[in-house]
Amino acid sequence: MININSDMGEGFGIYKLGDDEALMPYITEANVACGFHASDPNHMKRTVELAKQYDVKVGAHFSLPDLQGFGRRKMHLSQPELHNMIVYQIGALKGFLDMLGMPLNHLKPHGILYGMAASDPEIAETIANIALHYDVPVFGLTNTSHETVYKRKGVTFVPEFFTDLDYDQHGHLVITQTHDATDPIKAAKRVLKAVEQGTVIATNGDEIPVSAQTVCVHSDTPNALDIAKAVNAALKHHLPQSSKEFDVS
Amino acid sequence: MININSDMGEGFGIYKLGDDEALMPYITEANVACGFHASDPNHMKRTVELAKQYDVKVGAHFSLPDLQGFGRRKMHLSQPELHNMIVYQIGALKGFLDMLGMPLNHLKPHGILYGMAASDPEIAETIANIALHYDVPVFGLTNTSHETVYKRKGVTFVPEFFTDLDYDQHGHLVITQTHDATDPIKAAKRVLKAVEQGTVIATNGDEIPVSAQTVCVHSDTPNALDIAKAVNAALKHHLPQSSKEFDVS
Amino acid sequence: MININSDMGEGFGIYKLGDDEALMPYITEANVACGFHASDPNHMKRTVELAKQYDVKVGAHFSLPDLQGFGRRKMHLSQPELHNMIVYQIGALKGFLDMLGMPLNHLKPHGILYGMAASDPEIAETIANIALHYDVPVFGLTNTSHETVYKRKGVTFVPEFFTDLDYDQHGHLVITQTHDATDPIKAAKRVLKAVEQGTVIATNGDEIPVSAQTVCVHSDTPNALDIAKAVNAALKHHLPQSSKEFDVS
Amino acid sequence: MININSDMGEGFGIYKLGDDEALMPYITEANVACGFHASDPNHMKRTVELAKQYDVKVGAHFSLPDLQGFGRRKMHLSQPELHNMIVYQIGALKGFLDMLGMPLNHLKPHGILYGMAASDPEIAETIANIALHYDVPVFGLTNTSHETVYKRKGVTFVPEFFTDLDYDQHGHLVITQTHDATDPIKAAKRVLKAVEQGTVIATNGDEIPVSAQTVCVHSDTPNALDIAKAVNAALKHHLPQSSKEFDVS
Repeated sequence: MININSDMGEGFGIYKLGDDEALMPYITEANVACGFHASDPNHMKRTVELAKQYDVKVGAHFSLPDLQGFGRRKMHLSQPELHNMIVYQIGALKGFLDMLGMPLNHLKPHGILYGMAASDPEIAETIANIALHYDVPVFGLTNTSHETVYKRKGVTFVPEFFTDLDYDQHGHLVITQTHDATDPIKAAKRVLKAVEQGTVIATNGDEIPVSAQTVCVHSDTPNALDIAKAVNAALKHHLPQSSKEFDVS
Repeated sequence: MININSDMGEGFGIYKLGDDEALMPYITEANVACGFHASDPNHMKRTVELAKQYDVKVGAHFSLPDLQGFGRRKMHLSQPELHNMIVYQIGALKGFLDMLGMPLNHLKPHGILYGMAASDPEIAETIANIALHYDVPVFGLTNTSHETVYKRKGVTFVPEFFTDLDYDQHGHLVITQTHDATDPIKAAKRVLKAVEQGTVIATNGDEIPVSAQTVCVHSDTPNALDIAKAVNAALKHHLPQSSKEFDVS
Repeated sequence: MININSDMGEGFGIYKLGDDEALMPYITEANVACGFHASDPNHMKRTVELAKQYDVKVGAHFSLPDLQGFGRRKMHLSQPELHNMIVYQIGALKGFLDMLGMPLNHLKPHGILYGMAASDPEIAETIANIALHYDVPVFGLTNTSHETVYKRKGVTFVPEFFTDLDYDQHGHLVITQTHDATDPIKAAKRVLKAVEQGTVIATNGDEIPVSAQTVCVHSDTPNALDIAKAVNAALKHHLPQSSKEFDVS
Repeated sequence: MININSDMGEGFGIYKLGDDEALMPYITEANVACGFHASDPNHMKRTVELAKQYDVKVGAHFSLPDLQGFGRRKMHLSQPELHNMIVYQIGALKGFLDMLGMPLNHLKPHGILYGMAASDPEIAETIANIALHYDVPVFGLTNTSHETVYKRKGVTFVPEFFTDLDYDQHGHLVITQTHDATDPIKAAKRVLKAVEQGTVIATNGDEIPVSAQTVCVHSDTPNALDIAKAVNAALKHHLPQSSKEFDVS
């Protein structure tokens, strides 16, 4: 089955972001924030417990050290420094996973670091080296440094399809400051098309190839829960049935 | 042999504190700061590498979240919150240890948290539960909650003797804001007395019982290196020889 | 007229807290967070602009340095240190006020610091000294160190009545972790009673004296907007009319 | 007279950097860190007091929000965000200046932000707008956006000459990670040449034009005090006497 992943545990202190508890039953993989762009030890503990409760696998969603900018402001770090920051964050998350006897399932860079790793092979290589150490796959975009570098280094690359972001004709994501609501049925159909036919309709109308082993539903999209339910229902039934028959009502 | 421990990796960014590189050859256990009262991912990486180079064992020196106050300002946290903060810090440190194939050797609360755990059994119990999970000993003071709680919970308690702090007649440490220089020979003799006779001369002149399985040399004491050398030489030779014969020149 | 104050600008980065824009038309004084328990330079700028737009006076809502704990965790600071932290925060806020040609209207300690100043005269005195320098009043609780110390030091003390918190028979606030919704009409009537008769019904049923020169509506109470509207309408009409006649529909 | 400026108050918590107390008597302008790359409320208070004691003028040394990287790591911020961060920092510093009845004397961006403002006119303009509000000059490099933008906006531009950094043949500073020791006599002669003849010998041997209304001595250069003394002595005597006659012994 195709996995559904979502960024989880992005609150901080008394601040909430996304309804993790509602979403958790409809996803299979949680990318858990590690305290650098969001979260804190209390949120991490609760998020990992919640994932365990719903049998959801946990990956590290590490980022640049930028709580105020939610890891979306570009910073220039040396590769050794970036390496150390990622090791710190993964280690911290593993502290909570170890306590609950859960394995680290995957890595996924957060925010601007995701984009930086897509376009800068050095950054992708820094991530790859850490993935090799933990022997876990990395989620990323096809046709970017994510794919080329992870594969070259012998890291399992998991191509990710975004339910709530547009693609341009070159297959690049159209990144927006905030995530807008999307029609859940449309989103589910779009996911099925990506999974079954390996294509998506780009912003210019072209049908372009995409790769989707896991499907990302952003937890801070306004109707994230409806999208997750629809995508979840669609993917559960897509193999034996046609995309027209799934029920997401 | 009696171990010598020291708080290591207490720099932050461009700031330095203590000469870890010089001290490392004379200690056997490094208590490594985890980023909450001092240190950052770069300093943690270097400190763990340095410890490995000198075959020094590494423990987690976790603290309250207080970089500006160096973990020396009392804060009131709930026990679950404290638990989560400690798990986060230990996990982060283990990230670097795992990378180098080194085990976590012990736990030691830092600064005011060390004192709070000595007088508040609830805090000592929170630490004990984590120590049980990792199956490592905790360093602490005899005749305090450290000893009573860790032992009651089945955690290995390692009584610690401080080379550069005074004891009052009740066996309590006289905590000072800064650590003053101490005569190395006197310090070494005091350590031998504590180790061999199990006593120390308190501030009021009384000879009181102390326990010393590991001896702490603070890395920020002005002449920390001389003290470490003297204490190291004394402990290396104390079994076959008398305390009068060791050479610390 | 009696003033209505509210804690404003308590978001941080992408995190939101309270609907400042909706509330601002119904209050007369904004207590603006200064970055230590909440807020950041962007939020402060926007909040001060919003206050100016609605002709709302701005006071400094300073706190302990505790973003993760929202300034609600007790910390032990020396008085000089506390003094410096408050000066820093007020100065930062004044940076934005100066830019818009607005004066600093008042001071109000936030969260646990409000409670600490109520029970510890030393802390109240530290606040008083800063208030004297800026020649502004301080909001606080009657029958606590707030009142006694500020008055003794010659600082204008503004007794504050809380619309959404209960009082016990000794006149002490019953502090809760979260602020529950309150019936707006009841809240408005309770405010009028406090203002006109100088009393409130305590949790044990006693009618006790209270003092109310300004009335606080917490912006994070779930129905804060309805409460603010009702209290605002009640206070606007309370002098010529009876409390039965005001319209808060 | 030509001024001598130095970056002051760059400690943090228990960490020290530079010997401000020793340097203060030999400088005329202190660029005081505002808590974003270094310093905290306690250090700011002490630094401003020290400046007052030695009759040294105080400017705001604001930076990117990067305590761990000491404001030396490039970050991409929008201009409104940068504006707000600078206003916050200047305001915080003015809090301490106001307390002591001292005026804000000048602005000087710190670290990487100094370099960014030199090459990016938008950033220089953001700084210029704030300088106009406070009606203070900005220190910067000639032949960069510092000079062109500040002058165009009507801000007083103060060209700064660095005693301890090399210039390439284009007049650009050769920025180094750490500041190396420099021969004090050579530094003083180089300063006099810059002040009297308006030239400096570049790294390729060319004699190139420089402008120097204020001379910067970095407080973290190993022999900063000797350099400051020599430069101070040289500048005090340079007008009536020749550069050969000053005594810096």
